[in-house]
Amino acid sequence: MNLLVSEFIGTMVLILLGDGVVANVVLKGTKGHNGGWIVITTAWAFAVFCGVIVAAPSGAHLNPAVTIGLAVAGKFAWANALPFIIAQILGAMVGAFLVWIIYRDHFDASSDDPGGQLAVFSTGPAIRNPFSNIVSEIIGTFVLIFVILYCGAGSNVQGLAALGPLPVAILVFAIGLSLGGTTGYAINPARDFGPRVMHALLPMKGKGSSDWGYAWIPILGPITGAALAALVFALLQ
Amino acid sequence: MNLLVSEFIGTMVLILLGDGVVANVVLKGTKGHNGGWIVITTAWAFAVFCGVIVAAPSGAHLNPAVTIGLAVAGKFAWANALPFIIAQILGAMVGAFLVWIIYRDHFDASSDDPGGQLAVFSTGPAIRNPFSNIVSEIIGTFVLIFVILYCGAGSNVQGLAALGPLPVAILVFAIGLSLGGTTGYAINPARDFGPRVMHALLPMKGKGSSDWGYAWIPILGPITGAALAALVFALLQ
Amino acid sequence: MNLLVSEFIGTMVLILLGDGVVANVVLKGTKGHNGGWIVITTAWAFAVFCGVIVAAPSGAHLNPAVTIGLAVAGKFAWANALPFIIAQILGAMVGAFLVWIIYRDHFDASSDDPGGQLAVFSTGPAIRNPFSNIVSEIIGTFVLIFVILYCGAGSNVQGLAALGPLPVAILVFAIGLSLGGTTGYAINPARDFGPRVMHALLPMKGKGSSDWGYAWIPILGPITGAALAALVFALLQ
Amino acid sequence: MNLLVSEFIGTMVLILLGDGVVANVVLKGTKGHNGGWIVITTAWAFAVFCGVIVAAPSGAHLNPAVTIGLAVAGKFAWANALPFIIAQILGAMVGAFLVWIIYRDHFDASSDDPGGQLAVFSTGPAIRNPFSNIVSEIIGTFVLIFVILYCGAGSNVQGLAALGPLPVAILVFAIGLSLGGTTGYAINPARDFGPRVMHALLPMKGKGSSDWGYAWIPILGPITGAALAALVFALLQ
Repeated sequence: MNLLVSEFIGTMVLILLGDGVVANVVLKGTKGHNGGWIVITTAWAFAVFCGVIVAAPSGAHLNPAVTIGLAVAGKFAWANALPFIIAQILGAMVGAFLVWIIYRDHFDASSDDPGGQLAVFSTGPAIRNPFSNIVSEIIGTFVLIFVILYCGAGSNVQGLAALGPLPVAILVFAIGLSLGGTTGYAINPARDFGPRVMHALLPMKGKGSSDWGYAWIPILGPITGAALAALVFALLQ
Repeated sequence: MNLLVSEFIGTMVLILLGDGVVANVVLKGTKGHNGGWIVITTAWAFAVFCGVIVAAPSGAHLNPAVTIGLAVAGKFAWANALPFIIAQILGAMVGAFLVWIIYRDHFDASSDDPGGQLAVFSTGPAIRNPFSNIVSEIIGTFVLIFVILYCGAGSNVQGLAALGPLPVAILVFAIGLSLGGTTGYAINPARDFGPRVMHALLPMKGKGSSDWGYAWIPILGPITGAALAALVFALLQ
Repeated sequence: MNLLVSEFIGTMVLILLGDGVVANVVLKGTKGHNGGWIVITTAWAFAVFCGVIVAAPSGAHLNPAVTIGLAVAGKFAWANALPFIIAQILGAMVGAFLVWIIYRDHFDASSDDPGGQLAVFSTGPAIRNPFSNIVSEIIGTFVLIFVILYCGAGSNVQGLAALGPLPVAILVFAIGLSLGGTTGYAINPARDFGPRVMHALLPMKGKGSSDWGYAWIPILGPITGAALAALVFALLQ
Repeated sequence: MNLLVSEFIGTMVLILLGDGVVANVVLKGTKGHNGGWIVITTAWAFAVFCGVIVAAPSGAHLNPAVTIGLAVAGKFAWANALPFIIAQILGAMVGAFLVWIIYRDHFDASSDDPGGQLAVFSTGPAIRNPFSNIVSEIIGTFVLIFVILYCGAGSNVQGLAALGPLPVAILVFAIGLSLGGTTGYAINPARDFGPRVMHALLPMKGKGSSDWGYAWIPILGPITGAALAALVFALLQ
């Protein structure tokens, strides 16, 4: 039970800080308006850093793709996967709700930009092309899980353990900067699905579609990428 | 006594570097003019880093919300809270005074922007709405204190202790990037109140109002958020 | 054999994340379009960080200039140099191929910018001047190898080993920011040559020249700089 | 003798990377042109990081203000101060020379901007006012030396030693972001004087004045600030 609370809180912190930066950069009238890609990617990286600190008791998955990747790699019990994933989604929903609370006046100020409002909650493609988009999410998540597995117990990188949650934050930073340009790097089904539910539920002046037609890509892509990463990693050991 | 000097000096360094970056970005004719949100948030994060190094003997609260949060959490004696807070406010005042000394010519060059002059000293809302604004400060400070408590003694995050003051700097970085878009993330009553007093006292060409009507929000919000964080943290242990 | 796989995978990750950020910043319609030099240099630094984690078993050269520099310094067997370099080039090719896969729609959207398309794969000079350009690459790589040698075994910098792959990432960050302004800091023959081959092979709407006339500079420059660094380092011991 | 070589090489690396980023941001036609204050301050911070790694044997002063500050604090023999300072100045000269070598074509392309050319080498005031300018340099260097002394042996900041040269890099980062807006934060007499000599000596199309009238400020200011920091630090122990 404590582990589920840990995943819930960690993912809540992750999404509060992660969706928060998108609100700050995308919504109108904020202090970080148009702050640029460096602002978004720095914040997501450090959102992971903070989420990992809070969720240490449960191993800080914060991401169904991590949970599934570790299960495929034999480092996590399949029986615990579904409860973990539900906790992550619920945490993501609460995190997104808090972002909406904080930035409510700015959501209203952005009533003429329903796409921007949705972007605070969920990812969307720069160029809509289901095949390209899912491939982006598969490769992005592959890199995430693949490198995380190399960071794990028995890592022979000298000094890595002394960096605490910094390596995974830097990894997410790099993925965002480099591979996030096409789909906005969900690389985490809970990060996309939970907030998308909140977007559908919450009132917003000028709110548009929650784009459910796209929602399967940031779910299926990351899961596929994570499973592939675990398999390739196992192959290479 | 030494502990109070430590808090005084640490908060002075924090505000000198923190208000300093706002001067550099906001005032006219500076080398960092219009440097963007990434410049402001990076500097505040590292201002915390430097302040913590200097104020290590006293535990480097540098922030009445931290002092109160730790007291609520039972990790700091209430009897020492008021002296600590006074030392922090005085340190913040001297830090803000030094920023004024350094950037005096640029304050003069910004005589047509009294809002910008005030922004160097104190926070202000992007959209003025007392309820939204105080909620922003409550949630921002909640995250600050909540994660700090997880970083504390007995933390089970491997490698975290070896990072020294880096985790708290990264935490402040993330809060600024993500949750600072509405009110400019005071998340520290001394950071806002001390410099606001200095703004009221110091001569400045074209100086406008010190906006005392807003001053209670970055005091009450952070204290509330800190107390809530300590209570929730206790509940979860 | 395992060591070659390690170099292959590490360089693949390096180039996937490295060329990926150039695609994100340079190609049209991406989320990071025109993100600026800070985006590019941050990502290359952290691409190195991730590549080093993955390629730890082989010492994570990821760069023929590193391999040759270490061989000149007597820290790596010359007999293994060629296989290492081939593995690095092949890894770089696959990394660049994955970038093309991810950003394919954006390559098409940039059909009127063949120079930008090539820039995703390979470096090119800001001002074409073979002598200046090769000197840039020599000095950039000199700094890379020279500082890496000071980071190595027996380093007397306190705390450096506890930073894991962070120092080399920071070093590449600094070189990119400071010395990358002229030629785009290849400082790694595999990083330039492997992706240039892929540019020549892969279909792209509006594809222009692969600029083979420049290709020798980011090969010869880095090798020369690395050898010089190893010699000067030896001289100073 | 070895210690002087160490200071020479370390300051050379510092200035090569430090002046290099100014060339990249200020000169015309570079890849980092107009990259912004974040690019400049990040690079100077990491230039310090790299310089410290290379100059570890001599304690990596790299700065006459550090040497004098430590001497005033009784942590460095006065007899060695002058040789150290000369080595630092010579290293800074060679570093600036290498920047000129790398960016020569871009210096020529900037022949209509003699102020920009000089800015690559030396600092200059945003608003010329000798009193304000020297005060800026005094306070900036005070913070540098004051915090460095707190980082020193016997520091009671947990985990700080495990961060190697990172704290001083972060400190310089913060000073640049926050206090560099007025004079460009020389905070190091060798950093300003050595390259200014090179500016006077080297040929450059359209070269303007080396502004010797300002040169005393980034010498006297930092030395004064360093001495003050050492005295205040001693007072507080």
